[in-house]
Amino acid sequence: MLSIVVEHIFLLVIVTLISVLQNAFFATKVEREGKEHNNKTAFERVSCANRNCMDSYPTFLAVMWCAGLCLNQAPAAFAGIIYLVARQKYFVGYMGQTSQSTPGYLFGKRVLSFLILMCIVGIFNYLLLRYFGSDYKDTMEMITNAASALLLIP
Amino acid sequence: MLSIVVEHIFLLVIVTLISVLQNAFFATKVEREGKEHNNKTAFERVSCANRNCMDSYPTFLAVMWCAGLCLNQAPAAFAGIIYLVARQKYFVGYMGQTSQSTPGYLFGKRVLSFLILMCIVGIFNYLLLRYFGSDYKDTMEMITNAASALLLIP
Amino acid sequence: MLSIVVEHIFLLVIVTLISVLQNAFFATKVEREGKEHNNKTAFERVSCANRNCMDSYPTFLAVMWCAGLCLNQAPAAFAGIIYLVARQKYFVGYMGQTSQSTPGYLFGKRVLSFLILMCIVGIFNYLLLRYFGSDYKDTMEMITNAASALLLIP
Repeated sequence: MLSIVVEHIFLLVIVTLISVLQNAFFATKVEREGKEHNNKTAFERVSCANRNCMDSYPTFLAVMWCAGLCLNQAPAAFAGIIYLVARQKYFVGYMGQTSQSTPGYLFGKRVLSFLILMCIVGIFNYLLLRYFGSDYKDTMEMITNAASALLLIP
Repeated sequence: MLSIVVEHIFLLVIVTLISVLQNAFFATKVEREGKEHNNKTAFERVSCANRNCMDSYPTFLAVMWCAGLCLNQAPAAFAGIIYLVARQKYFVGYMGQTSQSTPGYLFGKRVLSFLILMCIVGIFNYLLLRYFGSDYKDTMEMITNAASALLLIP
Repeated sequence: MLSIVVEHIFLLVIVTLISVLQNAFFATKVEREGKEHNNKTAFERVSCANRNCMDSYPTFLAVMWCAGLCLNQAPAAFAGIIYLVARQKYFVGYMGQTSQSTPGYLFGKRVLSFLILMCIVGIFNYLLLRYFGSDYKDTMEMITNAASALLLIP
């Protein structure tokens, strides 16, 4: 049974692994800054950036997995990758001393909205299939696949 | 295969989505307070409330999904809704300047205990089914469905 | 269908429940220290230890579940138990006033690396099975089962 399951989630697992490695990278940065002891502001900046990233991490994971399970894993995993890139840019921008980047508290709102929309479409589609017998799943998957390309637009 | 899976988790997905929207609401509150800069205490209160909520969020998600997968999704999703209402009341109470509400560090203990109990019953039931061949699943589901109504009592 | 699922995840659910109980234990410790009001340093130590534990909790859960779903639940659950023991030691060590233990920001790196490796092996194995038709799953499971015993070496 498990290989059937793995077939439908392996892209999600890969994105999760990449996000875990990114978390480890962030944590290493924080630990290195904490050991130096001579730059209080830098440590606080890194620590704050890390905390903001970690605060939204469970939300991201939950939404990505729900979207992947309800509709289709390919666009969900793609949106996950986009989110990770946005997070990396946010963290690096937060660390920089120059005020070239003034990141807010939130980031990746567009990606998360897209994933939430995927979940809603997936559940709606399931309910349609159950109560009316009409299956738009193939159409929906095609549309979300196309829509996920729109996320690349900055 | 996926539509079979969606059938058993769609209520959990809906509750997860609502919790994500609530997280977004909390984060927006924190960001708005952070931008005003003139009220340090209010920002700290909101930030602290948000952090307490976020600290227990992965725990809540893990327990709710385990309970939903092991036993039945309907009471698990219902308990999840109750937990979200408790969290909303906690957050709003924490934000208020008046000391009408003095929330502690923990909240929603009763709901989480109920969900943990559901997990244990589900696993116990599976082990009984495996080693003794006796299936009390239907009885268990009926009892948990009834017990979840008790959560409404304040 | 669900009892088939429960068969493959019940060990993971048990470990998740234990981790939730441990979280509750940590939170109770923090709340009790916070109520005493007379020992600021102790409260900060406990709060910091709790926050470090909570920061890495979603990462741990995600990796453990992925490893358990992709390859085999038994070694994943065993590694999870080892991680929980490491976390307990970390938390208790952080709380102690004596400097006998100077825990860093990170802990349980070895266990998490092992779980990540399990995920990668599982996905690799699935891809091999899909594109080449060769199934090394049994061999892989045997090796990971044996390797998980190595985690016990301090």
